[in-house]
Amino acid sequence: MIAGTGTRPRVLIIGSGFGGLFAARALKRVDVDVKLIARTTHHLFQPLLYQVATGIVSQGEIAPSTREVLARQRNVEVLLGDVTEIDLASRTVTAETFGQVHTHGYDQLIVAAGADQSWFGRDEFALHAPGLKSIDDALELRGRIFGAFELAERAGAESRPADVERFTTFVVVGAGPTGVEMAGQLAELSGRTLRHEFRHIDPASARIVLLDAAPHLLGSFDAKLQRKTHAALHKLGVEVRLGAKVVEVDETGLDVEDPSGRTRIDAATKVWAAGVAASPLAEQLAGQVGVEVDHSGRIPVLPDLTLPGHPEVHVVGDMISLDSLPGVAQVAIQGARHSVAEIRRSLGGEETGRAFRYKDKGSMATISRFRAVAEVGSVKITGFLAWLMWLAVHLVYIIGFKSRITTLLHWFVSFIGRGRSERAVTEQQTFARVERQRQEA
Amino acid sequence: MIAGTGTRPRVLIIGSGFGGLFAARALKRVDVDVKLIARTTHHLFQPLLYQVATGIVSQGEIAPSTREVLARQRNVEVLLGDVTEIDLASRTVTAETFGQVHTHGYDQLIVAAGADQSWFGRDEFALHAPGLKSIDDALELRGRIFGAFELAERAGAESRPADVERFTTFVVVGAGPTGVEMAGQLAELSGRTLRHEFRHIDPASARIVLLDAAPHLLGSFDAKLQRKTHAALHKLGVEVRLGAKVVEVDETGLDVEDPSGRTRIDAATKVWAAGVAASPLAEQLAGQVGVEVDHSGRIPVLPDLTLPGHPEVHVVGDMISLDSLPGVAQVAIQGARHSVAEIRRSLGGEETGRAFRYKDKGSMATISRFRAVAEVGSVKITGFLAWLMWLAVHLVYIIGFKSRITTLLHWFVSFIGRGRSERAVTEQQTFARVERQRQEA
Repeated sequence: MIAGTGTRPRVLIIGSGFGGLFAARALKRVDVDVKLIARTTHHLFQPLLYQVATGIVSQGEIAPSTREVLARQRNVEVLLGDVTEIDLASRTVTAETFGQVHTHGYDQLIVAAGADQSWFGRDEFALHAPGLKSIDDALELRGRIFGAFELAERAGAESRPADVERFTTFVVVGAGPTGVEMAGQLAELSGRTLRHEFRHIDPASARIVLLDAAPHLLGSFDAKLQRKTHAALHKLGVEVRLGAKVVEVDETGLDVEDPSGRTRIDAATKVWAAGVAASPLAEQLAGQVGVEVDHSGRIPVLPDLTLPGHPEVHVVGDMISLDSLPGVAQVAIQGARHSVAEIRRSLGGEETGRAFRYKDKGSMATISRFRAVAEVGSVKITGFLAWLMWLAVHLVYIIGFKSRITTLLHWFVSFIGRGRSERAVTEQQTFARVERQRQEA
Repeated sequence: MIAGTGTRPRVLIIGSGFGGLFAARALKRVDVDVKLIARTTHHLFQPLLYQVATGIVSQGEIAPSTREVLARQRNVEVLLGDVTEIDLASRTVTAETFGQVHTHGYDQLIVAAGADQSWFGRDEFALHAPGLKSIDDALELRGRIFGAFELAERAGAESRPADVERFTTFVVVGAGPTGVEMAGQLAELSGRTLRHEFRHIDPASARIVLLDAAPHLLGSFDAKLQRKTHAALHKLGVEVRLGAKVVEVDETGLDVEDPSGRTRIDAATKVWAAGVAASPLAEQLAGQVGVEVDHSGRIPVLPDLTLPGHPEVHVVGDMISLDSLPGVAQVAIQGARHSVAEIRRSLGGEETGRAFRYKDKGSMATISRFRAVAEVGSVKITGFLAWLMWLAVHLVYIIGFKSRITTLLHWFVSFIGRGRSERAVTEQQTFARVERQRQEA
């Protein structure tokens, strides 16, 4: 069955991330029928997943319902579905929802299916070092992080010091913004939040290691900010190891290779914040237009973000390989707006094919509460001022989505507060994993 | 290994519910070593689980960390562990944590392991009609409720009206406070929250059925409040069916028997809020002291809440069968305080064995936002005033636990706001269940 045969041009959007959602919103006053198909019922504020993992915010606070965000935009229909096939020749997209297959035609297609975590070909690492790309990931990590302290306390009560050390060692692989933020939060959590909570261990003596194969942390940032961040992490007690490549990961730790040789780190909890792999849809599209994806599975696109021979197919965000653009929200948002502008020109009979120009609005990373680094153009900011900027930018975004004073208040309280009120872990997380490991052993 | 061999009397508490947590707090200034062993790392505000299921609050908001609540009470040690055995003769408790077994001696024992959902011997109903006793339950139901509307929208788009009806029919079994609150929230959710969000269905035409085998809803309440509640639910569009016994539950619906015969209700989403079964520890204890548990698995205790021949073993809350006490938080809290008073008397060499006197502080149930029913002694209150009482009682409790202004603000915002900001569902919830059902089929 082919759904969606109205008389207005049909714009199909795949994905509810920054690219997909901003594309839908940009189409608000355009006389088209929009369908947005996504695997989840929420938009996900991915840059804040580390806050869900460390108990600062709830999953709902960073994952507004896509339907709710788009409820009053009458030209949009939201569909829950996992897109399995895009057929450029017949201009159809096939998706699966709860096991049911459905197909949708389009006149214009915006593909914004994003990227998943990549373990660089070592997918077996994923079990022991989960990534941080979905709510499931974040809640899984929350269970592991708080569970590790429980295990350490047990080991402390039974005088097993080696186990205490292993359970209170946390390794974050990848020192980009996510890795830096995660390491900083783990340091705050162990050094401050949990201070009085245990009787047989001292959470403050937890070891937090931040690893990266590259010679610098925050690779895309200015050298001065890299140094400031390094110093701030050091002060928080985070052990930063650069030029260190992870060669093995297992249940009890990981092996690292650096110029001085191969070393072992015993650590129960590992977080993978290292690589990304574009949605498999990128490769599917590449095959149909005769191009090759890059090493991250991203598809090369024309300067106007369309595919060769298919001016009706726009690809935006983390899926594309173009001018070494970074995998950040702004690239997806601006790409989405560019594609919608192209669609409007096409509908209006104007000339299309304008090249996408990315405007770098700057980058920032929080190190701890009240402390961040930011660069906007040639201006570098650190410390409290950078953190205020970070806060402002995030609050403005959430207002954009929800326009609810209650949500804003919730966020404000979560960010300003010292609390970690979102520590609750499901039994599934607490016991099922242990059971699985026992069965595997 | 027997842990805990200090010189001070050892008080062991099993459970972190209202009974266990209030017992630990009541022991604050008592010169004893307290161990609290619980299956989860959080205390759970069970009466608000329906709010987690319907997207009003996050799990963290109703599940403060037990360690955090008790962090500064230095005479308490919190242990994560599933108690598998209580040996009254040797005065030891055996528990399992992440597969490791550990044993603890005690001088005084407070057993407050609570109750689970009961399907009255038809455990196979649980898969299709989950209960509402844990965070896992609430998140599972959240996934089912919001997922049902997604399925209905899909069915609507494909013109399958019978499926739309089945997916938008919600049956709540059990018309006690939890069932009434759940039904009321489902009515608000479908009638108001989701109003503009779908394109192929009208959520407001969802059918919400509240069933109970008893002839009245809110059985323990005054007849006038029962009538008021019935009327309020009717106004919200909830179909209340009393004297209706559920005889079969499956994937697509359930069978109900009432005086007029057996009828079928097609409903994708079923919520079980009907029966409770005490923790299996009750039966274990009963076997050791030669008494019989009642039909809900509850153990009869002496008037002072101890076990016959074991004045050092106190049982409180939902596990006990005594004077037809209801299974509410106040019975557990007052029982815990009574038991601690007995322990203090015992330590001080005073006479023990005073009978527990339950002081009924009243009961209340919310029907919808700004609307509740409450009775305090002979005073019956309904509507907004009752809702304000409900709000005040709950806010006071949470302050007691967290004493954090941020948490209070969070709650206040959640309760006052119209939003359902906690709708996010994990992929595990969205897809894994479907996959499991597919494999079973």
